[in-house]
Amino acid sequence: MVDEGLDAIVSFSPESVAYGAGFIIPSQAVPIRKRVFATVVTPQDETLIVASVERSEAEMRSRIRDIRPYDEFSVDPMQMVADALAEFGAADGRVAVELDFLPARHAPSLERHLAKATIEDAENVIGRMRSIKTVEELDSIRKIAQVVNDVHVSLAETAQPGWTEKQMALHLIEGILAGGGDGVTMLVVGSGERSVYANCPPTDRVIGEGDVIRVDIYAHVDGYLSDIARTLVVGEPDARQRDIWGKLCEAQTQLLDWIKPGASSLDVMRRFSALFAEMGLNPGINFVGHSLGLTLHEDPFINLSSDHELREGMVLAIEPVYFSDHGGFHLEDEIVLTADGVELLSDGRGEMRAIVGAYA
Amino acid sequence: MVDEGLDAIVSFSPESVAYGAGFIIPSQAVPIRKRVFATVVTPQDETLIVASVERSEAEMRSRIRDIRPYDEFSVDPMQMVADALAEFGAADGRVAVELDFLPARHAPSLERHLAKATIEDAENVIGRMRSIKTVEELDSIRKIAQVVNDVHVSLAETAQPGWTEKQMALHLIEGILAGGGDGVTMLVVGSGERSVYANCPPTDRVIGEGDVIRVDIYAHVDGYLSDIARTLVVGEPDARQRDIWGKLCEAQTQLLDWIKPGASSLDVMRRFSALFAEMGLNPGINFVGHSLGLTLHEDPFINLSSDHELREGMVLAIEPVYFSDHGGFHLEDEIVLTADGVELLSDGRGEMRAIVGAYA
Repeated sequence: MVDEGLDAIVSFSPESVAYGAGFIIPSQAVPIRKRVFATVVTPQDETLIVASVERSEAEMRSRIRDIRPYDEFSVDPMQMVADALAEFGAADGRVAVELDFLPARHAPSLERHLAKATIEDAENVIGRMRSIKTVEELDSIRKIAQVVNDVHVSLAETAQPGWTEKQMALHLIEGILAGGGDGVTMLVVGSGERSVYANCPPTDRVIGEGDVIRVDIYAHVDGYLSDIARTLVVGEPDARQRDIWGKLCEAQTQLLDWIKPGASSLDVMRRFSALFAEMGLNPGINFVGHSLGLTLHEDPFINLSSDHELREGMVLAIEPVYFSDHGGFHLEDEIVLTADGVELLSDGRGEMRAIVGAYA
Repeated sequence: MVDEGLDAIVSFSPESVAYGAGFIIPSQAVPIRKRVFATVVTPQDETLIVASVERSEAEMRSRIRDIRPYDEFSVDPMQMVADALAEFGAADGRVAVELDFLPARHAPSLERHLAKATIEDAENVIGRMRSIKTVEELDSIRKIAQVVNDVHVSLAETAQPGWTEKQMALHLIEGILAGGGDGVTMLVVGSGERSVYANCPPTDRVIGEGDVIRVDIYAHVDGYLSDIARTLVVGEPDARQRDIWGKLCEAQTQLLDWIKPGASSLDVMRRFSALFAEMGLNPGINFVGHSLGLTLHEDPFINLSSDHELREGMVLAIEPVYFSDHGGFHLEDEIVLTADGVELLSDGRGEMRAIVGAYA
C-alpha cells in the first residue's frame, strides 16, 4: 500500500473481504447480494464492516479483530466505510476502492461521504497482491487439487455405462467430502452432445457407449478453489478420440515447458495458438490459462488480449480445450510457479480414461 | 414496463438475466465476476448479451432468441448494451438499469454511451415484477420445497450419534439429488456450540448426546431455491429444548394466521415481535420472513424497517429463530399466498425431531 502511495484500500467483494478477514462471509458465499460487507485497511489500521447477522460468525473467525456490525435495513454501509476512513485519518487521502464489485448504486453515496478523498479503482493493486500466493494459501490450493485429482481417477474407475451424469456428480461430491474437501462449488459433467457446452451442469442423461464426457471440478478447502478438468470416454476410445486427446496432452506438456518465472503470458499464448493450429485444432475457448484462488478466474490470464510477466508464487490452471462434432475435449491442470519452473498440483496427461463394465 | 413509463429495462444480475433468458448463465452461477452478461428489453424487442464462452449454452437454452456474444477481453459490454438500446430506439428514452448489481466501474462508460438516455435504478420495477411468481416459477419452487422437506425428515430418521456434520451434509445432498433436485447451493449444519452461527457450513465435528443441530437447506430446481430450516436434538430433548421448540412452532402458527393478501408486512413483524417478547425470547435475526426465488433473499422482507402489502402469488420463507446458550433454534418454512390465505410448501412444526440410536 505504501509502495503504491495509497492511504487506504476498501474491499467489498467476497474474495477480497475473505482475503483480509481470513474467512469467507457466509452471506457473501450464498450470495445474499443486498448485504454489503467491507474491509477498510490503512497502513496502521484495519476494520471489518459486517451486516449484523454475521456478527457472531465474524467474532469467531475473523483475523481482523475490529469488527463493526450495522443494521442492514436502516444503515447506509457507505457511511460505515466513510466513518472508518475518517477515524483512520484517510478520509482526505488516496483511497483505492473495489469499483469492479461495488454496485453502481452505492457509488454516489460513497463519493458524497468521501468528498475530500481521491477514489481510485483498486483492481490492479488488489490483483497484484493476490496473484502471488502466500504459503498458507498454497497449502489450501495444493490440498484441494490433490483431492480433486484423486476423485477424477476414482470416477473413471467406478462409473459404469448406464450411470446418469448426476450419479457421476454424486460420486464426485462424496469423494471430495470424504477426501477432505470442504464442499463443491460447481461441477461440469457433460456427456455426449452436452460435452461441448462450456459450464454444463449434470443432468439425468444416461451415459452410453462412445460418449465423450467432460468433467470439470470446482471444489474448495478453506475457501480456495480447484479447477481441474478431465475427459472420459465410455468404452474404448476410437482412433479419432485417441488422436485428439493425445494432442491435448502434447500441448499441455509444451505449455508446462514454456511457463516459468519471467515468461510473458502473451508469448505463451501465441506459441500455444501456433501449436494448436499446426495440430489442426481450433481452441474451444479464447484463453489457455488463468490464475485462481479464492475465486475461479483471477489475473493473470493467458490470452491474446493481455501480457503479464509470470512470477514465482503464481498459481495457474492450464487448459487446452477442443470442441467439435466429436465431443468436447478438455484437459486442465493446476501448477504453481517455482523459482525455476513449475510444480504440478495435478496431472491428467496419459491415456484417455475409459469407463468400461457391464451396463447397470 | 409501459405502465411504469419506461422505454427499456437493462438487467445484469444473475437472477434477473436468468428471469429474462429462462436459464441461469453458468458463468454467473460460479460466479466468474469479470464476465458481464445483460438482457436489454423494450416493449417490442429483447436481446441477451453474453461473453462468447457462453454462446453455445445460450443458443441451446435461452428463451430470448436474439443472442449477442462478445469477446470478454477486448470488447466493452457497455458498448454492447448501448448498441442494442440504439437499435431498439430506446437510446434517448427512460432506461431502468440494474444499478444494484452493475459494478460501479462500468457506470461511467454506460453513462457516456447513453448520454441522451435517462438512467434510473431498476430495483423496484424488477422487484415488483419478480415478487409475484408465475405458474411455472411456482412449480419449480413447490418441487424443490417438497424435496427438501422430505430430506429433512429422512435426515432425522437416518443420522446417528457419532456422525459428523459433513456426513449429515452428504446424506442431505444424496437425498436432494435422488429426489429430483438439481443441486445444493449451500447447507447450514451447525451442531452444539456451532448451532448459533447464522450461516454455518458443515465440518468434521462429531454430534453427540444433547447437541442441538440447526440444519438449513438452500437447494435448487430449475434455478429456483429452497430455504427451509429445522432444528434437531441428539437424544431425547430436555425440558428447556422442548419448551423453546414449542414456542417457535406456536409463533409459526400465529405468523401463518396473520399472513394473507392485503396484510401489512410491518404489522406482521410488530405482532411477531410482541409475541416473541411475551414468550421471553429474543429474536435471533432482525427479520422473520423474506421472499425467495432465483435468489435466496428477495423483497418483500418482513422486518421493522419496511412495509409491504402482501399479495397473492408471493412466496415467503417464514422463520422464527432463537439463539441462546442453549443452542440455535430455527424453524423455517415456505408458503405461497393464495387468494384468501396461504398454501404451505413445507411444514416443520410438531415434536422436536430427535436423533437416537447406537453410537457409530
